[in-house]
Amino acid sequence: MSRTLDEFLRECVFPERLQRFEDVLEHRTRHVAVVLENIYHAHNASACLRTCDCFGIQDVHVIETENAFDPNPDIALGASKWLSIHRYTQGSEEESPESANAATAHCYESLRAQGYRILATSPRQHSLPLSEVSIDHKTAIVFGAEQVGASDFAIDQADALVHIPMFGFTESFNVSVSAAIILQQLTMQLHTIGLEWRLSELEKQEIRELWVRRSLGAKVGPLTRRFEQENS
Amino acid sequence: MSRTLDEFLRECVFPERLQRFEDVLEHRTRHVAVVLENIYHAHNASACLRTCDCFGIQDVHVIETENAFDPNPDIALGASKWLSIHRYTQGSEEESPESANAATAHCYESLRAQGYRILATSPRQHSLPLSEVSIDHKTAIVFGAEQVGASDFAIDQADALVHIPMFGFTESFNVSVSAAIILQQLTMQLHTIGLEWRLSELEKQEIRELWVRRSLGAKVGPLTRRFEQENS
Repeated sequence: MSRTLDEFLRECVFPERLQRFEDVLEHRTRHVAVVLENIYHAHNASACLRTCDCFGIQDVHVIETENAFDPNPDIALGASKWLSIHRYTQGSEEESPESANAATAHCYESLRAQGYRILATSPRQHSLPLSEVSIDHKTAIVFGAEQVGASDFAIDQADALVHIPMFGFTESFNVSVSAAIILQQLTMQLHTIGLEWRLSELEKQEIRELWVRRSLGAKVGPLTRRFEQENS
Repeated sequence: MSRTLDEFLRECVFPERLQRFEDVLEHRTRHVAVVLENIYHAHNASACLRTCDCFGIQDVHVIETENAFDPNPDIALGASKWLSIHRYTQGSEEESPESANAATAHCYESLRAQGYRILATSPRQHSLPLSEVSIDHKTAIVFGAEQVGASDFAIDQADALVHIPMFGFTESFNVSVSAAIILQQLTMQLHTIGLEWRLSELEKQEIRELWVRRSLGAKVGPLTRRFEQENS
């Protein structure tokens, strides 16, 4: 049996790098996912992506009905290259609040179809302090825009709310700070509660192929043509 | 016995605000302090200050030999007003590495004179993972500049090193993210290990007077003159 295109591309990546992929895949998870709703400061978006990569979170769902998601490459340090970023936008001709909610609704539907429970960050009534959140179930955490936080719709439609207890004059954390604290706590739980949070072999395979292609970058096109010529 | 200037100024602040001061003072601590060494992005400096305020950390020591410390008011949300910020700079005519270290040395001496153990954030050998750090002793945590991290001098002279375990491709966290994660973990410990981390009455008094003056802002000058006229 002849090798596939993916096998061929994999052979074009340095072995050290492929080994690094395997090391990182061992700590990658889809048990926790992140939703960023209309984050508009590039440095916040970037810091959130970097944090997700550092804690092994593979999937970031980006709702960008009001603000285009535009991470700052200096701060993201290439993190977005290794993440699966899922975008929910709307046509530029529709700008009513209903259609803004439609993008969030679409994101939530997609997450629920994948079995996620949805937790929105908000200090409103009935919000759980972070220490009381358990991730015995697949969980997606929603972080809202700077200043205004998660939208009313995102909060109302969530399964539960979470907040970080605060003791000072300031009433809220910076969004990238809030994401970091929450994700660190929840991924620490992963390593202790003994449930199956690692990727399946099939998921690893899919992400490995994504990383091989992203690693090769602009070389993928010419290499694919070469492979097709050799195998035609 | 007639009232003092401080008592007079306190009477000029709304009672609700004075009550808020008392609530915040109850959760304020000098058991943990923060050192920021040459942080140069305003948004990072600001996010660090905001995080300190949120977690009840009163003292921030700022070493600014290479970069002027310039928090962004939109991100700090006024947090610097409620903190005790201690600055360590050097004359602009001296720019050799020795004098840069002199500012860090000065900061460390001052902290040790106050009984602090110094922990520098660094991924170098012998660095403790965050989960192994105990704050049974007064502790100052040093965060270094973006990209380069804490200086060699700051690392060599520290009592111990600490790092946050990471599982992705990115080799470091954004500095404001790192500060948030470490400070959240350590201040959580405060609330559980049962040692005396709260301010003394004398410390509360000093900080209360600082807050009264900062709260009154530009009114302090005219009010002081009025007080002096009435009491002369």
